Amino acid sequence: MPTKVYKALADPTRRKILQLLRERDMTAGELADHFDSAKPTLSRHFSVLREADLIQGDKDGNYVRYRLNVSVLEEALLAMLETFKIDVGERDEELA
Amino acid sequence: MPTKVYKALADPTRRKILQLLRERDMTAGELADHFDSAKPTLSRHFSVLREADLIQGDKDGNYVRYRLNVSVLEEALLAMLETFKIDVGERDEELA
Repeated sequence: MPTKVYKALADPTRRKILQLLRERDMTAGELADHFDSAKPTLSRHFSVLREADLIQGDKDGNYVRYRLNVSVLEEALLAMLETFKIDVGERDEELA
Repeated sequence: MPTKVYKALADPTRRKILQLLRERDMTAGELADHFDSAKPTLSRHFSVLREADLIQGDKDGNYVRYRLNVSVLEEALLAMLETFKIDVGERDEELA
């Protein structure tokens, strides 16, 4: 997994954005309603997430609508498990 | 998962240290053999990983021997999957 994905995840605001978009697509304005951060700060977070390919912004009239690239996030986390040889399946068996 | 774990993982040298310690415990010197980084740089990385509780350093004579806190790393990655509602089990079924 590229370092930019790790870095994108290493911020609580950005993780919250991903969690919100996990529920449904949202415009920049809708997302902003969930944060106290200034607009330029949020824009910077969106841009970091876009550069990591974790989210995608589509023009929707005068708005930008963001959606989560679920498969990119999923692949990233699975790659992380593989990097550190963490076997989730084995763990599930232990818990069962 | 605390931000300091995410930040600890957001660096390729620190991830490599974790991967090396995943194989076996190593002294600071043994770890250093795998990197071109200056000693103080590596010490800083060790310290970030210790603060995140991902590794532990035990005095062994004149050496510090590092070991991976596997369960901390495992819990951290599983918490990440949960945060973003990534269901690895479901995926395994899809692939099967």
